[in-house]
Amino acid sequence: MNARLAAPADLDTVGALLDQFNREYEEPTPGPSWLAARLAELGDTEVLVIGEPICGLAVVRCRRSLWTPGLECHLAELYVVPERRGRRLGRSLMEGVLERARARGADHVELNTEQTDVAARALYESLGFSNRAGGEVSYYYELELQV
Amino acid sequence: MNARLAAPADLDTVGALLDQFNREYEEPTPGPSWLAARLAELGDTEVLVIGEPICGLAVVRCRRSLWTPGLECHLAELYVVPERRGRRLGRSLMEGVLERARARGADHVELNTEQTDVAARALYESLGFSNRAGGEVSYYYELELQV
Repeated sequence: MNARLAAPADLDTVGALLDQFNREYEEPTPGPSWLAARLAELGDTEVLVIGEPICGLAVVRCRRSLWTPGLECHLAELYVVPERRGRRLGRSLMEGVLERARARGADHVELNTEQTDVAARALYESLGFSNRAGGEVSYYYELELQV
Repeated sequence: MNARLAAPADLDTVGALLDQFNREYEEPTPGPSWLAARLAELGDTEVLVIGEPICGLAVVRCRRSLWTPGLECHLAELYVVPERRGRRLGRSLMEGVLERARARGADHVELNTEQTDVAARALYESLGFSNRAGGEVSYYYELELQV
């Protein structure tokens, strides 16, 4: 099964899946309809989906690189619903992400993932991603600002 | 000493410092003038500088968040020339980064750094950054695409 680019008509489903994603991991979510509307207005963002009905997605955000004439792409989200895991849908989504990144002129794809998420890490590493591209292990740090 | 936003007249110096940065770490660089021109055209990117003459910089790139109405900001580069290190200039730059991120309406700042870069990690952690914001250690992964 191959991933495909989400169409505008898919965004309600995509919003619902993203909402489900964050609820599964007990992260805050603004709700399905807000997410669908947000995705429609984020010009730098593409969603790949898989399944009929859709049961998995990848969200990719690209910007122009500082160091090269190309794009750098960030895998913002990767999700497959629990009941469809273990069927290589995540791999198909990631293959779609890389194919699409190349087609858009990206020369760099990045992502962050937790040390304990061994299935995801094995998938990323099998596709060539490295958490020691500079020689040493790279950490991802974040800070939430009060607004 | 406080950081300040780089002005257009500073971009040649900024390009030279970024070029020096990558040469110090034996990373490829497109050269000072290319970098200065690129920074001038990247509308999502701000540079903070410190020193007179300028001896340090921070490059911050922001985009609209997928999950909130705010901005998410990425610390793309942080550099102080070798002969000026150990004087808390990196801290002043980071304080400027956070102040500017708040002023722009960011609710999230992220960065990646190597495990062995203990001075930088101590600085980031002292400012509240965490590499286990989700509970587990987060890794930063990257893949270079052939173009």
